[in-house]
Amino acid sequence: MSIEIRNVTKQFGDTLALDHVSLTLEENKIYGLLGNNGAGKSTLLSIITDRQKATEGCVLVDGENVSGNDAALGKLFLVGEQNLFPDDMKVKRAFDTAQMFYPNFDRAYAEATAEKFGLNLKKKITALSTGYASIFRLILGLSVNTPYLFFDEPVLGLDAQHRDLFYRLLVEKYAENPCTIVISTHLIAEVANLIEHTIIIRTGRILKNLPTEELMADAFTVSGPAATVDAFTSGRHILTSSTLGGLKTACVQGVPEGELPVGLELSKINLQDYFISMMEEEDQK
Amino acid sequence: MSIEIRNVTKQFGDTLALDHVSLTLEENKIYGLLGNNGAGKSTLLSIITDRQKATEGCVLVDGENVSGNDAALGKLFLVGEQNLFPDDMKVKRAFDTAQMFYPNFDRAYAEATAEKFGLNLKKKITALSTGYASIFRLILGLSVNTPYLFFDEPVLGLDAQHRDLFYRLLVEKYAENPCTIVISTHLIAEVANLIEHTIIIRTGRILKNLPTEELMADAFTVSGPAATVDAFTSGRHILTSSTLGGLKTACVQGVPEGELPVGLELSKINLQDYFISMMEEEDQK
Repeated sequence: MSIEIRNVTKQFGDTLALDHVSLTLEENKIYGLLGNNGAGKSTLLSIITDRQKATEGCVLVDGENVSGNDAALGKLFLVGEQNLFPDDMKVKRAFDTAQMFYPNFDRAYAEATAEKFGLNLKKKITALSTGYASIFRLILGLSVNTPYLFFDEPVLGLDAQHRDLFYRLLVEKYAENPCTIVISTHLIAEVANLIEHTIIIRTGRILKNLPTEELMADAFTVSGPAATVDAFTSGRHILTSSTLGGLKTACVQGVPEGELPVGLELSKINLQDYFISMMEEEDQK
Repeated sequence: MSIEIRNVTKQFGDTLALDHVSLTLEENKIYGLLGNNGAGKSTLLSIITDRQKATEGCVLVDGENVSGNDAALGKLFLVGEQNLFPDDMKVKRAFDTAQMFYPNFDRAYAEATAEKFGLNLKKKITALSTGYASIFRLILGLSVNTPYLFFDEPVLGLDAQHRDLFYRLLVEKYAENPCTIVISTHLIAEVANLIEHTIIIRTGRILKNLPTEELMADAFTVSGPAATVDAFTSGRHILTSSTLGGLKTACVQGVPEGELPVGLELSKINLQDYFISMMEEEDQK
Protein backbone atom coordinates (compact mmCIF):
# COMPACT_ATOMS: atom_id res chain seq x y z
CA MET A 1 0.00 0.00 0.00
CA SER A 2 1.60 3.25 -1.12
CA ILE A 3 1.43 6.13 -3.53
CA GLU A 4 4.15 6.27 -6.17
CA ILE A 5 4.78 9.58 -7.89
CA ARG A 6 6.82 8.72 -10.95
CA ASN A 7 8.75 11.35 -12.80
CA VAL A 8 5.94 13.89 -12.70
CA THR A 9 6.45 17.08 -14.71
CA LYS A 10 3.94 19.90 -15.06
CA GLN A 11 4.36 22.72 -17.50
CA PHE A 12 2.16 25.85 -17.51
CA GLY A 13 3.11 27.76 -20.67
CA ASP A 14 6.78 28.66 -20.16
CA THR A 15 6.73 27.79 -16.47
CA LEU A 16 7.96 24.44 -15.28
CA ALA A 17 5.88 24.02 -12.11
CA LEU A 18 7.10 20.48 -11.43
CA ASP A 19 10.33 19.10 -12.82
CA HIS A 20 10.54 15.28 -12.89
CA VAL A 21 9.31 14.68 -9.35
CA SER A 22 9.55 11.13 -8.03
CA LEU A 23 8.36 10.28 -4.53
CA THR A 24 6.89 7.40 -2.57
CA LEU A 25 4.26 8.01 0.10
CA GLU A 26 4.17 5.02 2.42
CA GLU A 27 1.15 3.83 4.35
CA ASN A 28 0.40 5.11 7.84
CA LYS A 29 2.88 7.93 7.97
CA ILE A 30 2.52 11.69 8.45
CA TYR A 31 4.41 13.71 5.86
CA GLY A 32 5.20 17.41 5.85
CA LEU A 33 5.36 18.96 2.38
CA LEU A 34 7.30 22.19 2.82
CA GLY A 35 8.18 24.85 0.30
CA ASN A 36 7.84 28.55 -0.41
CA ASN A 37 4.94 30.04 -2.33
CA GLY A 38 5.28 29.02 -5.97
CA ALA A 39 7.47 25.99 -5.22
CA GLY A 40 4.90 23.56 -6.67
CA LYS A 41 3.25 22.12 -3.52
CA SER A 42 -0.36 22.73 -4.55
CA THR A 43 0.30 21.60 -8.11
CA LEU A 44 1.81 18.36 -6.83
CA LEU A 45 -1.18 17.70 -4.54
CA SER A 46 -3.60 18.48 -7.40
CA ILE A 47 -1.84 16.01 -9.68
CA ILE A 48 -1.73 13.27 -7.03
CA THR A 49 -5.49 13.67 -6.54
CA ASP A 50 -6.13 13.90 -10.31
CA ARG A 51 -7.56 17.43 -10.20
CA GLN A 52 -4.84 18.39 -12.67
CA LYS A 53 -3.12 16.27 -15.31
CA ALA A 54 0.65 15.87 -15.38
CA THR A 55 2.44 16.96 -18.56
CA GLU A 56 4.66 13.91 -18.11
CA GLY A 57 4.91 11.04 -15.63
CA CYS A 58 2.21 9.35 -13.60
CA VAL A 59 0.84 8.69 -10.10
CA LEU A 60 0.11 5.16 -8.91
CA VAL A 61 -2.19 4.56 -5.94
CA ASP A 62 -1.65 1.07 -4.56
CA GLY A 63 -0.21 0.17 -7.94
CA GLU A 64 -2.99 1.62 -10.10
CA ASN A 65 -2.73 4.73 -12.23
CA VAL A 66 -4.90 7.41 -10.60
CA SER A 67 -5.80 9.20 -13.82
CA GLY A 68 -9.57 8.94 -14.35
CA ASN A 69 -9.65 5.94 -12.01
CA ASP A 70 -12.60 6.28 -9.62
CA ALA A 71 -11.60 3.33 -7.44
CA ALA A 72 -8.14 4.82 -6.86
CA LEU A 73 -9.56 8.32 -6.37
CA GLY A 74 -11.96 7.05 -3.71
CA LYS A 75 -8.93 6.28 -1.55
CA LEU A 76 -7.75 9.91 -1.62
CA PHE A 77 -9.08 13.11 -0.13
CA LEU A 78 -7.60 16.56 -0.66
CA VAL A 79 -8.38 19.41 1.71
CA GLY A 80 -7.48 22.14 -0.75
CA GLU A 81 -7.90 25.87 -0.86
CA GLN A 82 -10.87 25.82 -3.21
CA ASN A 83 -14.48 25.23 -2.38
CA LEU A 84 -15.78 22.43 -4.61
CA PHE A 85 -19.40 22.64 -3.52
CA PRO A 86 -22.18 24.67 -5.22
CA ASP A 87 -22.22 28.29 -4.10
CA ASP A 88 -25.55 28.24 -2.27
CA MET A 89 -25.01 24.91 -0.50
CA LYS A 90 -25.20 24.88 3.28
CA VAL A 91 -22.62 23.10 5.47
CA LYS A 92 -25.15 20.44 6.53
CA ARG A 93 -25.98 19.62 2.92
CA ALA A 94 -22.28 19.46 2.02
CA PHE A 95 -21.88 16.80 4.72
CA ASP A 96 -24.74 14.85 3.04
CA THR A 97 -22.88 15.04 -0.27
CA ALA A 98 -19.58 13.93 1.28
CA GLN A 99 -21.42 10.98 2.81
CA MET A 100 -22.66 9.94 -0.63
CA PHE A 101 -19.19 9.99 -2.20
CA TYR A 102 -17.17 8.67 0.73
CA PRO A 103 -18.80 5.61 2.30
CA ASN A 104 -16.60 5.85 5.41
CA PHE A 105 -17.48 9.50 6.03
CA ASP A 106 -18.24 9.73 9.76
CA ARG A 107 -21.26 12.02 9.94
CA ALA A 108 -21.58 11.99 13.73
CA TYR A 109 -17.87 12.84 14.09
CA ALA A 110 -18.17 15.66 11.53
CA GLU A 111 -21.10 17.23 13.39
CA ALA A 112 -19.45 16.86 16.80
CA THR A 113 -16.26 18.42 15.41
CA ALA A 114 -18.22 21.28 13.83
CA GLU A 115 -19.65 21.97 17.28
CA LYS A 116 -16.17 22.00 18.85
CA PHE A 117 -15.05 24.62 16.33
CA GLY A 118 -18.30 26.58 16.60
CA LEU A 119 -19.10 26.04 12.89
CA ASN A 120 -22.76 26.73 12.16
CA LEU A 121 -24.17 23.86 10.04
CA LYS A 122 -26.94 26.05 8.69
CA LYS A 123 -24.59 28.59 7.10
CA LYS A 124 -24.00 28.72 3.37
CA ILE A 125 -20.44 27.66 2.54
CA THR A 126 -19.79 30.84 0.57
CA ALA A 127 -20.91 32.97 3.53
CA LEU A 128 -18.19 31.55 5.79
CA SER A 129 -15.23 33.76 6.82
CA THR A 130 -11.70 32.77 5.70
CA GLY A 131 -11.17 31.03 9.03
CA TYR A 132 -14.45 29.11 9.00
CA ALA A 133 -14.08 28.18 5.32
CA SER A 134 -10.78 26.52 6.33
CA ILE A 135 -12.48 24.89 9.32
CA PHE A 136 -15.29 23.51 7.13
CA ARG A 137 -12.75 21.92 4.76
CA LEU A 138 -10.57 20.47 7.47
CA ILE A 139 -13.58 18.90 9.17
CA LEU A 140 -14.36 17.15 5.87
CA GLY A 141 -10.77 15.90 5.83
CA LEU A 142 -10.89 14.66 9.40
CA SER A 143 -14.20 12.85 8.75
CA VAL A 144 -13.79 11.08 5.38
CA ASN A 145 -11.60 8.21 6.64
CA THR A 146 -9.82 7.58 3.35
CA PRO A 147 -6.46 5.79 3.53
CA TYR A 148 -4.69 8.83 2.00
CA LEU A 149 -5.38 12.33 3.21
CA PHE A 150 -3.87 15.56 1.87
CA PHE A 151 -4.07 18.93 3.61
CA ASP A 152 -3.06 22.00 1.60
CA GLU A 153 -2.60 24.97 3.97
CA PRO A 154 -5.28 23.64 6.33
CA VAL A 155 -4.99 26.37 8.98
CA LEU A 156 -5.01 29.51 6.82
CA GLY A 157 -6.86 32.25 8.71
CA LEU A 158 -7.39 30.13 11.84
CA ASP A 159 -6.67 31.67 15.24
CA ALA A 160 -4.16 30.02 17.57
CA GLN A 161 -6.82 28.23 19.62
CA HIS A 162 -8.45 26.68 16.55
CA ARG A 163 -5.07 25.69 15.06
CA ASP A 164 -4.22 23.96 18.31
CA LEU A 165 -7.58 22.15 18.26
CA PHE A 166 -6.97 21.00 14.67
CA TYR A 167 -3.51 19.61 15.48
CA ARG A 168 -4.89 17.76 18.50
CA LEU A 169 -7.79 16.26 16.52
CA LEU A 170 -5.43 15.21 13.74
CA VAL A 171 -3.13 13.36 16.16
CA GLU A 172 -6.15 11.74 17.83
CA LYS A 173 -7.57 10.65 14.46
CA TYR A 174 -4.22 9.26 13.36
CA ALA A 175 -3.81 7.32 16.61
CA GLU A 176 -7.26 5.75 16.32
CA ASN A 177 -7.30 5.20 12.62
CA PRO A 178 -3.79 5.31 11.08
CA CYS A 179 -3.58 6.49 7.48
CA THR A 180 -1.19 8.38 5.24
CA ILE A 181 -1.37 12.11 5.83
CA VAL A 182 0.42 14.82 3.85
CA ILE A 183 0.34 18.32 5.30
CA SER A 184 1.49 21.23 3.19
CA THR A 185 1.87 24.33 5.35
CA HIS A 186 3.81 27.54 5.85
CA LEU A 187 3.46 27.22 9.64
CA ILE A 188 6.40 24.84 9.87
CA ALA A 189 7.20 25.34 13.55
CA GLU A 190 3.69 24.23 14.51
CA VAL A 191 3.80 20.92 12.62
CA ALA A 192 7.46 20.09 13.31
CA ASN A 193 6.54 17.63 16.06
CA LEU A 194 3.74 16.07 14.01
CA ILE A 195 5.50 15.18 10.79
CA GLU A 196 7.53 11.99 10.76
CA HIS A 197 8.90 12.59 7.30
CA THR A 198 9.81 15.87 5.63
CA ILE A 199 9.69 16.63 1.92
CA ILE A 200 11.07 20.01 0.86
CA ILE A 201 10.23 21.22 -2.61
CA ARG A 202 11.81 24.19 -4.34
CA THR A 203 11.09 25.54 -7.84
CA GLY A 204 9.43 22.29 -8.82
CA ARG A 205 12.18 19.95 -7.62
CA ILE A 206 12.53 17.82 -4.50
CA LEU A 207 15.32 19.33 -2.40
CA LYS A 208 15.01 17.03 0.65
CA ASN A 209 13.05 13.86 1.28
CA LEU A 210 13.89 12.12 4.54
CA PRO A 211 12.72 11.32 8.06
CA THR A 212 12.33 14.57 10.03
CA GLU A 213 14.64 13.27 12.74
CA GLU A 214 17.41 12.61 10.24
CA LEU A 215 16.98 16.04 8.70
CA MET A 216 17.17 17.68 12.12
CA ALA A 217 20.30 15.75 13.04
CA ASP A 218 22.03 17.39 10.10
CA ALA A 219 22.46 20.83 11.67
CA PHE A 220 22.83 22.44 15.08
CA THR A 221 22.90 25.82 16.76
CA VAL A 222 25.81 27.10 18.82
CA SER A 223 25.82 30.32 20.80
CA GLY A 224 28.21 32.21 23.04
CA PRO A 225 30.87 34.93 22.85
CA ALA A 226 31.37 35.85 19.19
CA ALA A 227 35.11 35.10 19.08
CA THR A 228 34.65 31.67 20.69
CA VAL A 229 31.78 30.81 18.33
CA ASP A 230 33.89 31.92 15.36
CA ALA A 231 36.83 29.78 16.46
CA PHE A 232 34.59 26.74 17.04
CA THR A 233 32.80 27.06 13.70
CA SER A 234 35.86 28.00 11.65
CA GLY A 235 36.09 25.89 8.50
CA ARG A 236 32.52 24.67 8.96
CA HIS A 237 29.48 25.30 6.82
CA ILE A 238 27.57 28.09 8.57
CA LEU A 239 23.96 28.39 7.39
CA THR A 240 23.04 31.58 9.20
CA SER A 241 24.34 33.62 12.11
CA SER A 242 23.29 36.61 14.12
CA THR A 243 25.13 38.75 16.63
CA LEU A 244 23.61 40.70 19.49
CA GLY A 245 26.06 42.69 21.58
CA GLY A 246 29.07 40.40 21.89
CA LEU A 247 26.96 37.24 21.72
CA LYS A 248 26.74 35.25 18.53
CA THR A 249 24.38 32.48 17.49
CA ALA A 250 25.32 30.40 14.49
CA CYS A 251 23.35 27.71 12.75
CA VAL A 252 25.82 25.16 11.44
CA GLN A 253 25.44 22.29 8.97
CA GLY A 254 26.57 18.85 10.16
CA VAL A 255 27.13 17.45 13.64
CA PRO A 256 29.19 19.20 16.33
CA GLU A 257 32.71 17.73 16.53
CA GLY A 258 35.46 17.94 19.12
CA GLU A 259 35.17 19.21 22.66
CA LEU A 260 32.83 22.11 23.27
CA PRO A 261 34.83 25.16 24.46
CA VAL A 262 33.77 26.69 27.79
CA GLY A 263 31.13 29.39 27.36
CA LEU A 264 29.48 27.89 24.29
CA GLU A 265 26.05 26.37 24.30
CA LEU A 266 24.76 23.83 21.79
CA SER A 267 21.12 23.43 20.95
CA LYS A 268 18.95 21.63 18.44
CA ILE A 269 17.94 23.65 15.46
CA ASN A 270 14.24 24.09 14.90
CA LEU A 271 12.72 22.90 11.64
CA GLN A 272 11.32 26.27 10.58
CA ASP A 273 14.61 28.10 11.10
CA TYR A 274 16.45 25.31 9.32
CA PHE A 275 14.03 25.54 6.40
CA ILE A 276 14.49 29.32 6.17
CA SER A 277 18.28 29.06 6.25
CA MET A 278 18.20 26.37 3.54
CA MET A 279 16.07 28.65 1.34
CA GLU A 280 18.38 31.62 1.96
CA GLU A 281 21.30 29.49 0.94
CA GLU A 282 19.57 28.26 -2.21
CA ASP A 283 18.80 31.89 -3.10
CA GLN A 284 22.55 32.60 -3.09
CA LYS A 285 23.26 29.85 -5.63
CA MET B 1 2.50 61.84 22.23
CA SER B 2 0.06 58.95 22.46
CA ILE B 3 -3.20 57.51 21.26
CA GLU B 4 -6.04 57.42 23.78
CA ILE B 5 -8.91 55.05 23.15
CA ARG B 6 -11.68 56.22 25.44
CA ASN B 7 -14.58 54.00 26.26
CA VAL B 8 -15.07 52.84 22.68
CA THR B 9 -18.14 50.71 21.98
CA LYS B 10 -19.18 49.39 18.59
CA GLN B 11 -22.53 47.78 17.94
CA PHE B 12 -23.39 45.93 14.70
CA GLY B 13 -27.14 45.19 14.93
CA ASP B 14 -27.45 42.90 17.95
CA THR B 15 -23.72 42.22 18.15
CA LEU B 16 -21.56 44.17 20.55
CA ALA B 17 -18.22 44.04 18.70
CA LEU B 18 -16.45 46.34 21.18
CA ASP B 19 -17.63 46.87 24.72
CA HIS B 20 -16.31 50.05 26.38
CA VAL B 21 -12.68 49.63 25.39
CA SER B 22 -10.20 52.04 26.94
CA LEU B 23 -6.50 51.86 26.09
CA THR B 24 -3.47 54.06 25.78
CA LEU B 25 -0.89 53.46 23.05
CA GLU B 26 2.35 55.16 24.06
CA GLU B 27 4.93 56.51 21.68
CA ASN B 28 7.77 54.35 20.38
CA LYS B 29 6.56 51.02 21.58
CA ILE B 30 5.67 47.77 19.79
CA TYR B 31 2.29 46.39 20.82
CA GLY B 32 0.83 42.96 20.13
CA LEU B 33 -2.95 42.92 19.77
CA LEU B 34 -3.98 39.31 20.31
CA GLY B 35 -7.39 37.70 20.15
CA ASN B 36 -9.34 34.97 18.44
CA ASN B 37 -11.31 35.51 15.24
CA GLY B 38 -14.31 37.65 16.04
CA ALA B 39 -12.79 39.12 19.21
CA GLY B 40 -12.91 42.69 17.84
CA LYS B 41 -9.28 43.29 16.77
CA SER B 42 -10.00 44.49 13.23
CA THR B 43 -12.96 46.59 14.39
CA LEU B 44 -10.77 48.29 16.99
CA LEU B 45 -8.05 49.05 14.42
CA SER B 46 -10.66 50.37 11.97
CA ILE B 47 -12.08 52.70 14.60
CA ILE B 48 -8.65 53.96 15.69
CA THR B 49 -7.88 54.81 12.06
CA ASP B 50 -11.36 56.31 11.47
CA ARG B 51 -12.36 53.79 8.80
CA GLN B 52 -15.34 52.94 10.99
CA LYS B 53 -17.21 55.14 13.47
CA ALA B 54 -17.60 54.12 17.11
CA THR B 55 -21.14 53.77 18.43
CA GLU B 56 -19.91 55.37 21.64
CA GLY B 57 -16.59 56.74 22.90
CA CYS B 58 -13.74 58.38 21.01
CA VAL B 59 -10.12 58.09 19.92
CA LEU B 60 -7.64 60.89 20.57
CA VAL B 61 -4.38 61.08 18.60
CA ASP B 62 -1.90 63.32 20.39
CA GLY B 63 -4.88 64.88 22.16
CA GLU B 64 -7.05 65.46 19.09
CA ASN B 65 -10.19 63.56 18.20
CA VAL B 66 -9.39 61.47 15.13
CA SER B 67 -12.90 61.51 13.69
CA GLY B 68 -12.82 63.32 10.32
CA ASN B 69 -9.54 64.99 11.35
CA ASP B 70 -7.10 64.88 8.43
CA ALA B 71 -4.14 66.15 10.44
CA ALA B 72 -4.59 63.39 13.04
CA LEU B 73 -5.24 60.76 10.36
CA GLY B 74 -2.03 61.70 8.57
CA LYS B 75 -0.13 60.39 11.60
CA LEU B 76 -1.67 56.92 11.30
CA PHE B 77 -1.30 54.11 8.80
CA LEU B 78 -3.24 50.86 8.85
CA VAL B 79 -1.99 47.82 6.96
CA GLY B 80 -5.39 46.14 6.79
CA GLU B 81 -6.80 43.18 4.96
CA GLN B 82 -8.57 45.20 2.29
CA ASN B 83 -7.11 46.72 -0.82
CA LEU B 84 -8.01 50.42 -0.87
CA PHE B 85 -6.62 51.13 -4.32
CA PRO B 86 -8.58 51.10 -7.62
CA ASP B 87 -8.86 47.62 -9.11
CA ASP B 88 -6.74 48.18 -12.20
CA MET B 89 -3.96 50.10 -10.45
CA LYS B 90 -0.44 48.73 -10.70
CA VAL B 91 1.91 48.45 -7.70
CA LYS B 92 4.19 51.22 -9.04
CA ARG B 93 1.26 53.62 -9.39
CA ALA B 94 0.03 52.75 -5.89
CA PHE B 95 3.44 53.80 -4.56
CA ASP B 96 2.96 57.16 -6.41
CA THR B 97 -0.40 57.59 -4.68
CA ALA B 98 1.02 56.72 -1.26
CA GLN B 99 3.75 59.31 -1.85
CA MET B 100 1.12 61.99 -2.50
CA PHE B 101 -0.79 61.27 0.71
CA TYR B 102 2.14 60.51 3.01
CA PRO B 103 4.92 63.10 2.66
CA ASN B 104 7.42 60.89 4.50
CA PHE B 105 6.76 57.87 2.27
CA ASP B 106 10.21 56.53 1.36
CA ARG B 107 9.92 55.62 -2.31
CA ALA B 108 13.46 54.29 -2.68
CA TYR B 109 13.01 52.08 0.39
CA ALA B 110 9.65 50.78 -0.90
CA GLU B 111 11.17 49.81 -4.26
CA ALA B 112 14.24 48.20 -2.68
CA THR B 113 11.98 46.24 -0.30
CA ALA B 114 9.73 45.15 -3.18
CA GLU B 115 12.83 43.76 -4.85
CA LYS B 116 13.83 41.86 -1.70
CA PHE B 117 10.40 40.20 -1.62
CA GLY B 118 10.35 39.63 -5.38
CA LEU B 119 7.23 41.81 -5.80
CA ASN B 120 6.77 42.85 -9.43
CA LEU B 121 6.05 46.61 -9.54
CA LYS B 122 4.34 46.30 -12.91
CA LYS B 123 1.66 43.90 -11.69
CA LYS B 124 -1.91 45.02 -11.10
CA ILE B 125 -2.75 44.93 -7.39
CA THR B 126 -5.81 42.75 -7.97
CA ALA B 127 -3.72 40.22 -9.90
CA LEU B 128 -1.46 39.55 -6.88
CA SER B 129 -1.68 36.20 -5.04
CA THR B 130 -2.81 36.20 -1.39
CA GLY B 131 0.84 36.18 -0.31
CA TYR B 132 1.93 39.01 -2.61
CA ALA B 133 -1.17 41.09 -1.79
CA SER B 134 -0.04 40.90 1.86
CA ILE B 135 3.53 41.75 0.83
CA PHE B 136 2.36 44.78 -1.17
CA ARG B 137 0.44 46.12 1.85
CA LEU B 138 3.19 45.50 4.36
CA ILE B 139 5.72 47.28 2.15
CA LEU B 140 3.42 50.32 2.18
CA GLY B 141 3.38 50.07 5.98
CA LEU B 142 7.14 49.80 6.25
CA SER B 143 7.63 52.78 3.92
CA VAL B 144 5.12 55.44 5.07
CA ASN B 145 7.05 56.57 8.16
CA THR B 146 4.04 57.73 10.14
CA PRO B 147 4.42 57.95 13.93
CA TYR B 148 1.68 55.33 14.44
CA LEU B 149 1.59 52.15 12.42
CA PHE B 150 -1.02 49.36 12.59
CA PHE B 151 -0.62 45.91 11.05
CA ASP B 152 -3.74 43.73 10.85
CA GLU B 153 -2.69 40.13 10.05
CA PRO B 154 0.30 41.33 8.04
CA VAL B 155 1.72 37.90 7.19
CA LEU B 156 -1.42 36.05 6.01
CA GLY B 157 -0.44 33.69 3.19
CA LEU B 158 3.28 34.46 3.45
CA ASP B 159 5.76 31.61 3.43
CA ALA B 160 8.20 31.17 6.32
CA GLN B 161 11.08 32.87 4.50
CA HIS B 162 9.02 35.97 3.68
CA ARG B 163 7.59 36.15 7.20
CA ASP B 164 11.11 36.04 8.57
CA LEU B 165 12.15 38.83 6.18
CA PHE B 166 9.20 40.97 7.29
CA TYR B 167 10.00 40.57 11.00
CA ARG B 168 13.64 41.47 10.35
CA LEU B 169 12.73 44.56 8.31
CA LEU B 170 10.25 45.65 10.97
CA VAL B 171 12.86 45.46 13.72
CA GLU B 172 15.40 47.29 11.53
CA LYS B 173 12.88 50.03 10.73
CA TYR B 174 11.93 50.41 14.38
CA ALA B 175 15.59 50.65 15.43
CA GLU B 176 16.34 53.34 12.85
CA ASN B 177 13.14 55.27 13.14
CA PRO B 178 11.23 54.47 16.35
CA CYS B 179 7.45 54.80 16.19
CA THR B 180 4.39 53.18 17.74
CA ILE B 181 3.59 49.86 16.11
CA VAL B 182 0.54 47.68 16.78
CA ILE B 183 0.61 44.17 15.31
CA SER B 184 -2.56 42.11 15.31
CA THR B 185 -1.74 38.51 14.42
CA HIS B 186 -2.70 34.87 14.94
CA LEU B 187 0.96 33.82 14.64
CA ILE B 188 1.67 34.68 18.27
CA ALA B 189 4.78 32.54 18.70
CA GLU B 190 6.51 34.38 15.88
CA VAL B 191 5.97 37.88 17.30
CA ALA B 192 6.45 36.98 20.97
CA ASN B 193 10.01 38.34 21.01
CA LEU B 194 9.05 41.47 19.09
CA ILE B 195 6.17 42.82 21.13
CA GLU B 196 7.06 44.82 24.22
CA HIS B 197 3.48 45.14 25.36
CA THR B 198 0.61 42.67 24.98
CA ILE B 199 -3.07 43.50 24.67
CA ILE B 200 -5.45 40.55 24.67
CA ILE B 201 -8.99 41.16 23.54
CA ARG B 202 -11.87 38.73 23.89
CA THR B 203 -15.50 39.20 22.81
CA GLY B 204 -15.00 42.95 22.56
CA ARG B 205 -13.39 43.44 25.95
CA ILE B 206 -9.78 43.93 27.02
CA LEU B 207 -8.73 40.84 28.95
CA LYS B 208 -5.04 41.70 29.46
CA ASN B 209 -3.06 44.86 28.87
CA LEU B 210 0.48 44.77 30.22
CA PRO B 211 4.17 44.52 29.36
CA THR B 212 4.83 41.16 27.69
CA GLU B 213 7.52 40.37 30.24
CA GLU B 214 5.10 40.89 33.13
CA LEU B 215 2.49 38.72 31.43
CA MET B 216 5.01 35.95 30.89
CA ALA B 217 6.15 36.10 34.51
CA ASP B 218 2.62 35.23 35.55
CA ALA B 219 2.77 31.54 34.57
CA PHE B 220 5.27 28.72 34.23
CA THR B 221 5.58 25.19 32.97
CA VAL B 222 6.61 22.26 35.13
CA SER B 223 7.26 18.76 33.87
CA GLY B 224 8.34 15.43 35.31
CA PRO B 225 6.84 12.24 36.76
CA ALA B 226 3.06 12.70 36.95
CA ALA B 227 2.76 12.05 40.70
CA THR B 228 5.57 14.52 41.54
CA VAL B 229 4.06 17.17 39.26
CA ASP B 230 0.64 16.62 40.85
CA ALA B 231 2.07 16.97 44.37
CA PHE B 232 4.00 20.13 43.44
CA THR B 233 1.03 21.78 41.72
CA SER B 234 -1.58 20.68 44.24
CA GLY B 235 -3.76 23.61 45.30
CA ARG B 236 -2.42 25.73 42.47
CA HIS B 237 -4.24 27.11 39.48
CA ILE B 238 -3.42 24.76 36.61
CA LEU B 239 -4.15 26.24 33.21
CA THR B 240 -3.55 23.16 31.07
CA SER B 241 -1.77 19.86 31.44
CA SER B 242 -0.87 16.90 29.29
CA THR B 243 0.42 13.45 30.13
CA LEU B 244 2.54 11.22 27.92
CA GLY B 245 3.43 7.86 29.38
CA GLY B 246 4.17 8.63 33.02
CA LEU B 247 5.45 12.13 32.28
CA LYS B 248 3.26 15.11 32.90
CA THR B 249 3.62 18.72 31.81
CA ALA B 250 1.49 21.31 33.53
CA CYS B 251 1.13 24.96 32.76
CA VAL B 252 0.53 26.75 36.04
CA GLN B 253 -0.64 30.27 36.84
CA GLY B 254 1.56 32.35 39.16
CA VAL B 255 5.22 31.99 40.14
CA PRO B 256 6.79 28.72 41.31
CA GLU B 257 7.04 28.62 45.10
CA GLY B 258 9.01 26.49 47.52
CA GLU B 259 11.86 24.17 46.69
CA LEU B 260 11.67 22.30 43.42
CA PRO B 261 11.40 18.54 44.07
CA VAL B 262 14.04 16.34 42.45
CA GLY B 263 12.99 15.15 38.98
CA LEU B 264 10.91 18.19 38.11
CA GLU B 265 11.91 20.71 35.51
CA LEU B 266 10.69 24.28 35.34
CA SER B 267 10.53 26.25 32.14
CA LYS B 268 9.15 29.50 30.87
CA ILE B 269 5.79 29.31 29.25
CA ASN B 270 5.58 30.50 25.65
CA LEU B 271 3.22 33.33 24.79
CA GLN B 272 1.18 31.38 22.23
CA ASP B 273 0.58 28.43 24.56
CA TYR B 274 -0.27 30.82 27.37
CA PHE B 275 -2.74 32.63 25.13
CA ILE B 276 -4.40 29.35 24.10
CA SER B 277 -4.71 28.16 27.69
CA MET B 278 -6.22 31.51 28.72
CA MET B 279 -8.81 31.19 25.96
CA GLU B 280 -9.61 27.59 26.92
CA GLU B 281 -10.14 28.74 30.47
CA GLU B 282 -12.38 31.62 29.43
CA ASP B 283 -14.44 29.16 27.33
CA GLN B 284 -15.17 27.21 30.52
CA LYS B 285 -16.59 30.27 32.30
